Amino acid sequence: MSILIKGGTVVNATGAVAADVLVDGEKIVALLAPGFPLQADETIDATGKYVIPGGIDGHTHMEMPFGGTFSADSFETGTIAAAWGGTTTIIDFAVQVKGTSLLSTLDKWHGKADGNCAIDYGFHMIVSDVNDTSLKEMESCVDAGVNTFKMFMAYPGVFYATDGEILRAMQKARETGSTIMMHAENGIAIDQLVAQALAQGRTDPVEHGLTRPAELEGEATSRAITLAKVTGSPLYIVHLSAAQALDAVTKARDTGQNVFAETCPQYLYLSLEDLAKPDFEGSKYVASPPLRPKEHQTELWRGLRTNDLSVVSTDHCPFCFKDQKELGRGDFSKIPNGMPGVEHRIDLLHQGVVKGEISLERWVEICSTTPARMFGLHPRKGVVTPGADADIVVYDPSATQVISAATHHMNVDYSAYEGMEITGKVDTVLSRGRVVVDAGGFHGAPGHGKFLSRELNQYLV
Amino acid sequence: MSILIKGGTVVNATGAVAADVLVDGEKIVALLAPGFPLQADETIDATGKYVIPGGIDGHTHMEMPFGGTFSADSFETGTIAAAWGGTTTIIDFAVQVKGTSLLSTLDKWHGKADGNCAIDYGFHMIVSDVNDTSLKEMESCVDAGVNTFKMFMAYPGVFYATDGEILRAMQKARETGSTIMMHAENGIAIDQLVAQALAQGRTDPVEHGLTRPAELEGEATSRAITLAKVTGSPLYIVHLSAAQALDAVTKARDTGQNVFAETCPQYLYLSLEDLAKPDFEGSKYVASPPLRPKEHQTELWRGLRTNDLSVVSTDHCPFCFKDQKELGRGDFSKIPNGMPGVEHRIDLLHQGVVKGEISLERWVEICSTTPARMFGLHPRKGVVTPGADADIVVYDPSATQVISAATHHMNVDYSAYEGMEITGKVDTVLSRGRVVVDAGGFHGAPGHGKFLSRELNQYLV
Amino acid sequence: MSILIKGGTVVNATGAVAADVLVDGEKIVALLAPGFPLQADETIDATGKYVIPGGIDGHTHMEMPFGGTFSADSFETGTIAAAWGGTTTIIDFAVQVKGTSLLSTLDKWHGKADGNCAIDYGFHMIVSDVNDTSLKEMESCVDAGVNTFKMFMAYPGVFYATDGEILRAMQKARETGSTIMMHAENGIAIDQLVAQALAQGRTDPVEHGLTRPAELEGEATSRAITLAKVTGSPLYIVHLSAAQALDAVTKARDTGQNVFAETCPQYLYLSLEDLAKPDFEGSKYVASPPLRPKEHQTELWRGLRTNDLSVVSTDHCPFCFKDQKELGRGDFSKIPNGMPGVEHRIDLLHQGVVKGEISLERWVEICSTTPARMFGLHPRKGVVTPGADADIVVYDPSATQVISAATHHMNVDYSAYEGMEITGKVDTVLSRGRVVVDAGGFHGAPGHGKFLSRELNQYLV
Amino acid sequence: MSILIKGGTVVNATGAVAADVLVDGEKIVALLAPGFPLQADETIDATGKYVIPGGIDGHTHMEMPFGGTFSADSFETGTIAAAWGGTTTIIDFAVQVKGTSLLSTLDKWHGKADGNCAIDYGFHMIVSDVNDTSLKEMESCVDAGVNTFKMFMAYPGVFYATDGEILRAMQKARETGSTIMMHAENGIAIDQLVAQALAQGRTDPVEHGLTRPAELEGEATSRAITLAKVTGSPLYIVHLSAAQALDAVTKARDTGQNVFAETCPQYLYLSLEDLAKPDFEGSKYVASPPLRPKEHQTELWRGLRTNDLSVVSTDHCPFCFKDQKELGRGDFSKIPNGMPGVEHRIDLLHQGVVKGEISLERWVEICSTTPARMFGLHPRKGVVTPGADADIVVYDPSATQVISAATHHMNVDYSAYEGMEITGKVDTVLSRGRVVVDAGGFHGAPGHGKFLSRELNQYLV
Repeated sequence: MSILIKGGTVVNATGAVAADVLVDGEKIVALLAPGFPLQADETIDATGKYVIPGGIDGHTHMEMPFGGTFSADSFETGTIAAAWGGTTTIIDFAVQVKGTSLLSTLDKWHGKADGNCAIDYGFHMIVSDVNDTSLKEMESCVDAGVNTFKMFMAYPGVFYATDGEILRAMQKARETGSTIMMHAENGIAIDQLVAQALAQGRTDPVEHGLTRPAELEGEATSRAITLAKVTGSPLYIVHLSAAQALDAVTKARDTGQNVFAETCPQYLYLSLEDLAKPDFEGSKYVASPPLRPKEHQTELWRGLRTNDLSVVSTDHCPFCFKDQKELGRGDFSKIPNGMPGVEHRIDLLHQGVVKGEISLERWVEICSTTPARMFGLHPRKGVVTPGADADIVVYDPSATQVISAATHHMNVDYSAYEGMEITGKVDTVLSRGRVVVDAGGFHGAPGHGKFLSRELNQYLV
Repeated sequence: MSILIKGGTVVNATGAVAADVLVDGEKIVALLAPGFPLQADETIDATGKYVIPGGIDGHTHMEMPFGGTFSADSFETGTIAAAWGGTTTIIDFAVQVKGTSLLSTLDKWHGKADGNCAIDYGFHMIVSDVNDTSLKEMESCVDAGVNTFKMFMAYPGVFYATDGEILRAMQKARETGSTIMMHAENGIAIDQLVAQALAQGRTDPVEHGLTRPAELEGEATSRAITLAKVTGSPLYIVHLSAAQALDAVTKARDTGQNVFAETCPQYLYLSLEDLAKPDFEGSKYVASPPLRPKEHQTELWRGLRTNDLSVVSTDHCPFCFKDQKELGRGDFSKIPNGMPGVEHRIDLLHQGVVKGEISLERWVEICSTTPARMFGLHPRKGVVTPGADADIVVYDPSATQVISAATHHMNVDYSAYEGMEITGKVDTVLSRGRVVVDAGGFHGAPGHGKFLSRELNQYLV
Repeated sequence: MSILIKGGTVVNATGAVAADVLVDGEKIVALLAPGFPLQADETIDATGKYVIPGGIDGHTHMEMPFGGTFSADSFETGTIAAAWGGTTTIIDFAVQVKGTSLLSTLDKWHGKADGNCAIDYGFHMIVSDVNDTSLKEMESCVDAGVNTFKMFMAYPGVFYATDGEILRAMQKARETGSTIMMHAENGIAIDQLVAQALAQGRTDPVEHGLTRPAELEGEATSRAITLAKVTGSPLYIVHLSAAQALDAVTKARDTGQNVFAETCPQYLYLSLEDLAKPDFEGSKYVASPPLRPKEHQTELWRGLRTNDLSVVSTDHCPFCFKDQKELGRGDFSKIPNGMPGVEHRIDLLHQGVVKGEISLERWVEICSTTPARMFGLHPRKGVVTPGADADIVVYDPSATQVISAATHHMNVDYSAYEGMEITGKVDTVLSRGRVVVDAGGFHGAPGHGKFLSRELNQYLV
Repeated sequence: MSILIKGGTVVNATGAVAADVLVDGEKIVALLAPGFPLQADETIDATGKYVIPGGIDGHTHMEMPFGGTFSADSFETGTIAAAWGGTTTIIDFAVQVKGTSLLSTLDKWHGKADGNCAIDYGFHMIVSDVNDTSLKEMESCVDAGVNTFKMFMAYPGVFYATDGEILRAMQKARETGSTIMMHAENGIAIDQLVAQALAQGRTDPVEHGLTRPAELEGEATSRAITLAKVTGSPLYIVHLSAAQALDAVTKARDTGQNVFAETCPQYLYLSLEDLAKPDFEGSKYVASPPLRPKEHQTELWRGLRTNDLSVVSTDHCPFCFKDQKELGRGDFSKIPNGMPGVEHRIDLLHQGVVKGEISLERWVEICSTTPARMFGLHPRKGVVTPGADADIVVYDPSATQVISAATHHMNVDYSAYEGMEITGKVDTVLSRGRVVVDAGGFHGAPGHGKFLSRELNQYLV
């Protein structure tokens, strides 16, 4: 079946043009000057709207185990919410449990996701256990289309890897062309500050932020960069939140080192003040790294403009306030870490365009094109071009909406952006040629989404 | 008439895809999945080749007056040579003579170029005389499609502008959204070093390099950046050659300031050693800033990767060795400043791809897409997309060639790259839908090229 | 005649010790453990007090011609005021008038100072006219004990030197081992801003500050540093006031370049708010560079701690409010530039000790030891040691005083620090063995002070 | 008994003066103008020689346990060797064994040193075991005159402290005004590189250097600085060897943070080439951090000039080649880490004066005055002034000597500087008023040296 998207402005990362887009089956087959005489089975009127490549959220955690509970979105509910928000690809994290193998972990995650996703999906692998076997398995993961390996300098006793383990994994990454993704916070030092806070009876959610100072994110980021330099490994800093960390990334990128970073909408719009909300409301904003004082936001927007921050992902990891976040009443260190967000990334970043923080093209680049290249999906994803998958969003830049848990589609009982007014709204979403969202509602289905075997990071020269 | 370019790999700045390109009249009207069933009046077989947007050379000096002589290429010979090399747009500099008006200067340059160019062209304006009248005229220039104003911190008594004049012009640039282009060398200090060299009997071409130390380019670049910061003006550093200058640009760009820079092929491939060639051969390599010691080349390639250098232009300003360069025998300061290059930029930068210095996409970005956006021509130029002008180059990445004055098309009696072996070669060139170069030779004509009234710099947020 | 200063704490730059000091004639002849059994003709009881080397003010302008008037202190009144404040050496600036020779200028200044100074004095030379003759004369100046040459990047048409002239003078400085002192503000750009302000009717004293932005001091400082690097000349930045300039100095010093800087008490204690005082009161605070917004003060104190600022001088250049400052009513650019200060430097910097900004030893170092070494007077001056001139201040750290024009000894009708409460007070001052100030008043005499033929900068390795 | 040192040039950190020095008992009681008429029981003729404060070596390891053996110098042999070389104070490291208390460790070290030292001595404390008890004990150590606590980011399983332990100790340091001394190498990462080298059969001494890359010293230094910033603790980096580490220190010091660093003579004069000497000769040069490629030396000398390196200590830790170094034949990781040096620091640094790397005053500052202030001994030590201990060296700047194991006094069978020709030589050494070395040989005695209860770091403002 063919679909002609007519009358819109096609926005790719390198510019906007008035053009029609012809979809045939799962693919884009033609980009046409407006009014070019071609027929299709169906027509979508995009007049006055943007036609953009579907969003790629490179950082989600669906049904992730954490401290005895699971993040609240399943692959089904999470990918449907993503689709509603104009995201047509997610890359989720398979989580190795210590003592288990990487490949069995991958199997397990395929078991969770396969047949349940409404949009396409890939996996990163969290390496919790570095040893000869798991290092060898990294090669098999690459062959299986998973070539991005996340490690943690935080969470001692859980995900924490020593610098020696990081060094070994990075050596393997260089050898295989893979990229190491890093949660860069000095968890060893932080844990002391956490223990001291608790010992002093400081137990409120805001202490989560106060015991994780920005300097310790900056430090860990610098350290990861040095280890990457020593080993020659590509490095991707996840959920960068602090100006100090951005500074370290900027300096490394100035030298041409293969260092990349993402930030998340919550660090651009929310702050330590939210963590300090009374009546345990602050718990809704507990994630790691923590929300920072507001002045960091200015730096992060600047980083997005200068491309020292290349990507915005969500780190979507929803826990309900009731029963889940509440596990940490009286002890902030027991609050499940994570915030919902997969549905609103495209909208929230569009506010950056509206406010003049970023250009229209940069919006598309940050949300789709760069993640596609970074995670080896380009040009199949991330660009509106013939030959690409027909993952397309028709976006209405002048519609308005108000974010609310009452209307969102994520399986979580609160919104971190409750009441926020947004200019711009997803109008129609195609996933591999199928209209999954339009004015009539959701038309997709679990199982439509396919696993993406990914190529290597395309930014490496 | 329609043309279908079939079977090639379309390379845009954001990625390469197998696609066919349909041209109708002067425009690209469709980008099609390979084999998409559409007919055209003519077909070009691009199998095994790249299909890229035509090159944009943002820095040329055709028939430019200099020290009593003129650069050797006319707009006719120069644009034909450009076309041979895959460049389909040049932006040349109109040169205000002190005491004359900007608008009459523009008229004069239209008089030289109109009807004589084989490819499209635009103008920058060199502002030699800053006063209330010329500042006011800058507004009219912007209206006339010329919104980039070049100034000189070098050449006292000729083009040199004082910091006060620069400040005033920058204030006007900010007011009008224009961009100031800067030749950043401390000419006042350099002139002392030149005078001292001559007084000591040091008269060979190499002295041109020795009397213009890299530190003084770094200094002037920093100064221009500060003046731009104080006034809020966008700034574009032309022909950056020194690591010190790149360092200043990098630091400014890290802060998000609207500072941009170009380098030229000669700074990437040639060095002070060429300037030191015996028998006055060095004179062939005299340009300002001068060729630098080789170690600067590494830094410049890095800058191209990190986007601290955004553009490669040629600063094409050819003077024949015989009769022109020879004016400086016995006094290097009398050697006409400039080198030929408009024909070989695309090929020379493709060598960077071959050697792994830059990616394929970055090659296109540097040579075409970024200059299009920087100089307000996008998406009309700089991208292969429906709606864009059909300025297209079919490039054969595996053909080889040897650069030589015996075979080049520029009107100058030497090549700075004589004997250099190149992998890659222009196969076919379309200028606004007309095949102007192919295996059969040159099919264009003077007058085919049209003046481009340009929009403002599209990188400003 | 011998004098024994008993019971005090001798504070030198490297530490404080309880010791007695024996003076014989003009010299210190012994430093003795407390109570060491030696007799003297006279005894000064320093119990509970500091015994420090007399202050050296490296930057004064006595009876300096400026815009048709003269700074209000003569060498007699100025040096008496200095002595009251614990300063026993000044280095004043001889001012070359264009078209005259350096040596005749030196003669002229000897004519003004010789026989009139109450304390010892030396000269720096302001080079206004760079030509073959004056460059040659620099050698004679060095022979005559004047080896520090001040140049201006500000004040076009008056003292302004072009970068070419600066380069030539720096070459001569390197050749002779001299140090170039630089007034680093981009006067060419500033003059445009001044003209624009006046054209817009902005004529109040605060405009003096607003038209001389800190960035333009930073720029000029960077430029001077680059020129010093290119030539190999030592460089001393006078009256540094802006964080941007300090940053440039810091970076240069990190590389080991021979770059030094001084600041002045007015930049540590006063700010743009003073310049903005109503009723033309702001004119009392007009000096160049201008007073800066308060946040610069924090940086300057830090610079004093890190030794990126090595010296505090006064730039003492008093003009009376009545008749002199008033020349600029209705046109801030006509306000004579300069502020009084020679009398209060030691006290004001002692406040830095009281407030914990600097250590006791650093106070002595900044006010005396470093200027002695910087200006080639050590160990004759700047240290309490046998062999040194008996320039000694007994300072009472617990006495208090209030600064006021009503009680100060400078020949000017206002104080920039009127009403400021100070902890610490000069008790007794010896100049070359003579008690010139004590509780009984001033006992010195014009003509007691001798000209100091200075050696080269002792910080150069 | 009184001694008059006549006719010499007294060199203190702030300058050199011709002066006589009168010693009475253990103290300096007078500094006198040359020829000042005072008698003494004895006279030492210092004509043509320097009279300097005795050297203070802030980093020695006498009879230190390491890997089943002990460093070869006892407190007796080591302090006698130190005296021969003009060092009159050492500060040695008491080494806490895990599971034991700090105070018992201190007792143990007193047991080793008391009654055995020929010169005065103090202790630093190595904290191997951070827990509530040892943290509390740090307070008692401070009371006992030991307020500098060394920690290791290297040597996992032995001395290694986690970042959390470091953080806790730094908090206690801030609370008590103490200074944390840091061995800054990322030992966790290094141990992986070591294991890999051994697994690959790379066992020669040079591998010691190759498995400890300079970047990992830079990283650890940065990390320690961040932890110090977060906690507010003073930090002193011991034995800095790498340009990357110096860069981190420089940046921190530019901000005014209380960060200090020492280097050692071996890093200034020896290099990786020595480690690569054949026939296991390289083992003589095994210490940690390792000797670096030669280009680091230039940076270190620069750091000494800019005061980013404040001190030169020896890290004296001698192991005999025979039987000790030989433990590592076939496995470089088993070579005892350490080199002899306590005897030659003053001479080796004097070579820096001879070669123009540092000034005469800076030599004294680096070797004596700064360590005295840094380690709370000033003005009792580190300066030639009345009231100070009569720790004095008469140094002959024109004598020459050749360093050799055949003539040195350290209890070790090789010299790292064998055959090196030195200009300058210790002539006479006084320790607290007693002539312990002169032309007639060694006149001191074990037990003459007294324990120094030290005050806090005097550089903290």
